[in-house]
Amino acid sequence: MDSKGSAPDPVPAVGMVGAGQLARMTSSAATALGIRFRVLAATPDESAAQVTADVVVGDHRSKADLMAFADGCDVVTFDHENVPGPLIEAMEAAGHAVRPGSRALKYTQDKLAMRERLTALGCQCPEFALVTGPDDVAAFAAKTGWPVVLKAVSGGYDGRGVWVCQDLPAAAEVLGKGLELIAEEYVRFSRELAVLVARSPSGQGAAYPVVETVQKDGICREVIAPAPELPPLATAEAQGLGLSVARDLGVVGLMAVELFDTSDGLVVNELAMRPHNSGHWTIEGSVTSQFEQHLRAVLDLPLGSPTQASRWSVMVNILGGDDPDLRSRLVHVMAADPAVKIHLYGKPSRPGRKVGHVTALGQDLERTRERAWRAAYYLAHGTEEYT
Amino acid sequence: MDSKGSAPDPVPAVGMVGAGQLARMTSSAATALGIRFRVLAATPDESAAQVTADVVVGDHRSKADLMAFADGCDVVTFDHENVPGPLIEAMEAAGHAVRPGSRALKYTQDKLAMRERLTALGCQCPEFALVTGPDDVAAFAAKTGWPVVLKAVSGGYDGRGVWVCQDLPAAAEVLGKGLELIAEEYVRFSRELAVLVARSPSGQGAAYPVVETVQKDGICREVIAPAPELPPLATAEAQGLGLSVARDLGVVGLMAVELFDTSDGLVVNELAMRPHNSGHWTIEGSVTSQFEQHLRAVLDLPLGSPTQASRWSVMVNILGGDDPDLRSRLVHVMAADPAVKIHLYGKPSRPGRKVGHVTALGQDLERTRERAWRAAYYLAHGTEEYT
Repeated sequence: MDSKGSAPDPVPAVGMVGAGQLARMTSSAATALGIRFRVLAATPDESAAQVTADVVVGDHRSKADLMAFADGCDVVTFDHENVPGPLIEAMEAAGHAVRPGSRALKYTQDKLAMRERLTALGCQCPEFALVTGPDDVAAFAAKTGWPVVLKAVSGGYDGRGVWVCQDLPAAAEVLGKGLELIAEEYVRFSRELAVLVARSPSGQGAAYPVVETVQKDGICREVIAPAPELPPLATAEAQGLGLSVARDLGVVGLMAVELFDTSDGLVVNELAMRPHNSGHWTIEGSVTSQFEQHLRAVLDLPLGSPTQASRWSVMVNILGGDDPDLRSRLVHVMAADPAVKIHLYGKPSRPGRKVGHVTALGQDLERTRERAWRAAYYLAHGTEEYT
Repeated sequence: MDSKGSAPDPVPAVGMVGAGQLARMTSSAATALGIRFRVLAATPDESAAQVTADVVVGDHRSKADLMAFADGCDVVTFDHENVPGPLIEAMEAAGHAVRPGSRALKYTQDKLAMRERLTALGCQCPEFALVTGPDDVAAFAAKTGWPVVLKAVSGGYDGRGVWVCQDLPAAAEVLGKGLELIAEEYVRFSRELAVLVARSPSGQGAAYPVVETVQKDGICREVIAPAPELPPLATAEAQGLGLSVARDLGVVGLMAVELFDTSDGLVVNELAMRPHNSGHWTIEGSVTSQFEQHLRAVLDLPLGSPTQASRWSVMVNILGGDDPDLRSRLVHVMAADPAVKIHLYGKPSRPGRKVGHVTALGQDLERTRERAWRAAYYLAHGTEEYT
């Protein structure tokens, strides 16, 4: 991987900062396309580090580690949002191709900047305000009513950094944590949707079908592709929103937009600029997986077709149960349904931890959902009684 | 991977002897299922060694190297037929789970034993005879006519070790090489077919759709799944043959049976007991890829569904052309057809060398073939004029 003093290697090398399951699944997509793939892992036993030939162990908060990592890569990309902005800028200043770049990534790291920018772009967002004390929250609640959602401006993920406060004492407790916070209107939605788009440095864009996502305790449980009974106009609106936000923010790579489906239309909840849990179904359910698409985009290769390969795709996350021995149950799930696709991330199971996912494809939605749920739930809990 | 002196690791480890493209593609299937995967590579830059976290560099003809490799694996399997039989037996004698085992593998390493056994099992084979000199060949040709096919009893692959002799002087030249040879009747066929089956230690079997394969100079160029216009009875016959041969020979894992389609029915050409070029289309074209299926089989997990995911799947191998710089042409192929699936093996391109493959899925056979051929040919040669 040394780029110095030798003839240029025609095979591009993509380096991904972070070695979780997103990097693990990206690794297989790189293998298929003959792309060299390197991960920066915190420890050698992380999910992607277990299966990637080129692993650099280092700290994503260390400038020295990041710069050394980037030195061997043609393109640097990310499996999480936790690299400090100034370090991303430092890699760019040193001449590295960082995709997405710091200009785009700041909107995933700073929720206030994201809200301000999306509102300026005309996207429907919840009411929001920076709050520094109980008076601010009280004033905000006077406009929007209770509950009020408080969010950490930076560092949230999978429900962490988000608090739904029913009253001022609850808000005061969150304020006491000493974090920079915004208040957001509590949006009453009928369901949650997500749209995944890709954008290349050349400006090519591609949008996947809009999906319905089911969250519990802030963690994604299920994704249904396409979102059932979503009117074509709403699909077009969501895809157009994703593509135009990606362009306006200068995103390169994948971007997922999480949306609330409300009686007043689609409201933007969150943005992520990387492969996303709402897109795991694309491995089997789309002509081009989100992981291949991300690699194509960051390498400025023409994007692949985001077309669905089946009428319905349903993905259910495997969240660890009380008994961590998933593997002993694998045989039963495989025997019960030889067509369900099981993905395990190589992570030790702990209660509530995402340790894998299951995807089922089919013609009948309820049957497909049932297959995915039964498999995922049995793997985690050893029972099919998932309802 | 050290199995001594520590608590048993619940994640099974499959070791594959050989690190070519078959091992490379198996590696990604292992990643998805959370199976630890280790390869024995001749050099650290082999196709699979580039992308596998756990690589042991060693010689597959060395007993010490094989035994050391097997020590860290729950199951040992193979990406080629070149491990000497006595060394496979030595691994078994030492208590290692070798799948397929020596009893089955000998039929892929000894063409005379294969012909004798298949004939005894009632499979239609070409006429054959062991030949040690020109008199034997002349006597054989008196029965079957010229040309006569001479085959090395062991060590052949991709057209190597096979000579079509038009007359006795040509045969004498081959005999002069000093190899152990069999003579085979030159079978006049309308086309070549292949059937891929899987079998587990528990005896579960699964058969993929029968495919048509197109060879040139002994090298597979194209695979069409399913074989066009193959009567249902012939499909059932081929699948039944594959499953019964796998059972009778005690195969564990995948087995491909190459067949001639003749006016007298199906004639067995060759056997392979591993993932096979005729099954690469299954990565996108089947619910379960052959690589996942092989892992399930050797681990005695329930087999996956071999159902086709699309009406037609066409795979065309990328054989290197005069200009080795495939990668500069990748952008054009991806732009021309965003739905074609490109697989590159990380091997330097040389004229005629298999360096990757392309798979296209579709509803219309001729259009699907054209898409796969154009992409594969353009990658190799920089022209679409492939006919």
